[in-house]
Amino acid sequence: MVRSCVHIVGGGVIGLACAWELSRNGHDVTVVAPSPGRDGASWVAAGMLAPVTEAQFGESALTALLLAGARLWPGFAAALEEAAQESIGYDTTGTVTVALDASDRASLDDLLAYQQSLGLEATRCSASECRALVPALSPTLRGGIEVPGDHQVDNRALLTALGAACRHGGVAFVESSVSAVGAGPELVLADGRRLHPDHVVLAAGTGLPFIGGLEGAGLPEVRPVKGHIIRVRPPSGPHAGAAPLLTRTVRGLVHGHSVYLVPRRDGSVVVGATVEERGDDTAVLAGAVHELLCDARAIVPGLDELELSEVAAGLRPATPDNTPRIGWTALEGVMLAVGHFRNGILLAPLTAAAVVDLLGERPVAPVIEALAPA
Amino acid sequence: MVRSCVHIVGGGVIGLACAWELSRNGHDVTVVAPSPGRDGASWVAAGMLAPVTEAQFGESALTALLLAGARLWPGFAAALEEAAQESIGYDTTGTVTVALDASDRASLDDLLAYQQSLGLEATRCSASECRALVPALSPTLRGGIEVPGDHQVDNRALLTALGAACRHGGVAFVESSVSAVGAGPELVLADGRRLHPDHVVLAAGTGLPFIGGLEGAGLPEVRPVKGHIIRVRPPSGPHAGAAPLLTRTVRGLVHGHSVYLVPRRDGSVVVGATVEERGDDTAVLAGAVHELLCDARAIVPGLDELELSEVAAGLRPATPDNTPRIGWTALEGVMLAVGHFRNGILLAPLTAAAVVDLLGERPVAPVIEALAPA
Repeated sequence: MVRSCVHIVGGGVIGLACAWELSRNGHDVTVVAPSPGRDGASWVAAGMLAPVTEAQFGESALTALLLAGARLWPGFAAALEEAAQESIGYDTTGTVTVALDASDRASLDDLLAYQQSLGLEATRCSASECRALVPALSPTLRGGIEVPGDHQVDNRALLTALGAACRHGGVAFVESSVSAVGAGPELVLADGRRLHPDHVVLAAGTGLPFIGGLEGAGLPEVRPVKGHIIRVRPPSGPHAGAAPLLTRTVRGLVHGHSVYLVPRRDGSVVVGATVEERGDDTAVLAGAVHELLCDARAIVPGLDELELSEVAAGLRPATPDNTPRIGWTALEGVMLAVGHFRNGILLAPLTAAAVVDLLGERPVAPVIEALAPA
Repeated sequence: MVRSCVHIVGGGVIGLACAWELSRNGHDVTVVAPSPGRDGASWVAAGMLAPVTEAQFGESALTALLLAGARLWPGFAAALEEAAQESIGYDTTGTVTVALDASDRASLDDLLAYQQSLGLEATRCSASECRALVPALSPTLRGGIEVPGDHQVDNRALLTALGAACRHGGVAFVESSVSAVGAGPELVLADGRRLHPDHVVLAAGTGLPFIGGLEGAGLPEVRPVKGHIIRVRPPSGPHAGAAPLLTRTVRGLVHGHSVYLVPRRDGSVVVGATVEERGDDTAVLAGAVHELLCDARAIVPGLDELELSEVAAGLRPATPDNTPRIGWTALEGVMLAVGHFRNGILLAPLTAAAVVDLLGERPVAPVIEALAPA
């Protein structure tokens, strides 16, 4: 294999996972990003690894990609924890999705039939079966679905571990944004500096449209899809509870709204997420926080007694068909790894492996080949 | 008048107002508080000056006190702004209280009858009359009450201005908590230092029960009453609105819950406040934030599009009869000014004036005399 000098534009989970995998495969890697590990949607995310509960009608090709991504996770998690010498909170307990009203139950049954038609593992549960799995559920639910194959990772621990593994692996970091990409390839930084690697991987997420010089590269449109999220944790004061409220990811349909509650090992819970087409707007709005609290407490009433520790909003990078683009662009030496939308964390290991293969000019699987930029 | 050395224990609005008034009256004043201007309930408050809408059945004596307090505000505000050379956001536009459902309307009519029986100025309004005063109100309200005499001040600007006026007036600050009060009087600080002023004014709010040496002083029980509050502001991004959402304080009864929205001149709005008997617990709980958002957006739906800029909880100092205690204690040279509960900001000028009179051994009005510790 030829050792190549690769510059990765973007410090989210895709950029860092690519950087680590490329460094493990002998490349000379630099990450160029304003704030690696804190950039973009990855830091705000919940960390669900959910190929089954993210399956949407009409997106069976995407579901196949998500399943391929999920299969890499156990090995990726073990190798990363070994390399970083840190836990990433990888948890394979499984997920329960519940329905609040009869209409939600009907929607969930339709979804279950679709999941089963794709051969996915999902089981219908009565309300009491759901509560046996998750005692904190509201007694008024209409039952749900158990999905043992949908897991989670602590996204912030993951980003921290990826940063550590990159540093241990000799990855360099240039904390700057990239204003343009030129032939060569060449990277022009915000402060005017110019870098000349052998190859560039554009993993800039919603930042992609702000990079100049890419007009003829055949890039997809990438739009920001806003998501609000809140984090709650057990209060430390006199009203602190003994047992954690949740030990398993809960998703819910609440009068037609989707909500999820992802518990962390420290007893905190990530509640998300809105899906809003509002352009580049990361203001935390009162109405969105209300909606999340309202929907989450409808399925897990005990949430009321947890401390609200964070409210945030992030922007997911989405392409017109909600599917990522991974592959060489029309610009010599410039590769793309963007548009992961709601599935960036799930798809990070698969994307990183694909980028390594593409750089090594090795054949990739058909699911990856299908993601090549037009 | 004899110039006396007075130490004030407490750096909330009561402590600072007393310090400034005493310094204006020629005394040698020191404020002893861990974080003057940021201590206690005053910083978290909304700043309503509301003798009428705070009138509660069976508390007509307290209402008389609140009215006496309100009468001092115009002069106090003008003198303070002059002394501090800063605006305190004093606003006399008036308040509208609205009812969400028929039962809320009935409660509001009962309250209106009570207010009018006390001779207070309050007028019944139809829903459309309310919306003429406050266009942002929900179209589904059941009308309300207009109360021209209930005003507001920006509590944080007030605290900042009081601090500045104190410093200009020569008030000294000792940033420490007081662990005990002894005969003399003597103040024992947390670090063991001992201070020996001529007089002590205890304005420690919910901190009072934590000060030792006061067993025989005849002090009232002071308990903390928790209040959650949230602050919202116009977003600065692409969705920023032109006109402020509110220009007048709105109170509401929402399915029996009380809520208020107090607009600031910068377009932000303070939304409060829960009233919770939970001991010394200042954790911001998800359920309380949900309740405030839910009730506030029910009467002002446009709140949804404002940015959630702060969530907080504070502890109001309340006595068993919800009425403050102002006067000399059984301990020689030690005066009390505590227990202002929901009305500390409204009553700060009156309390400060009373403390000056009591220290000067001048007669005080009967409403003040009635507040003497037992």
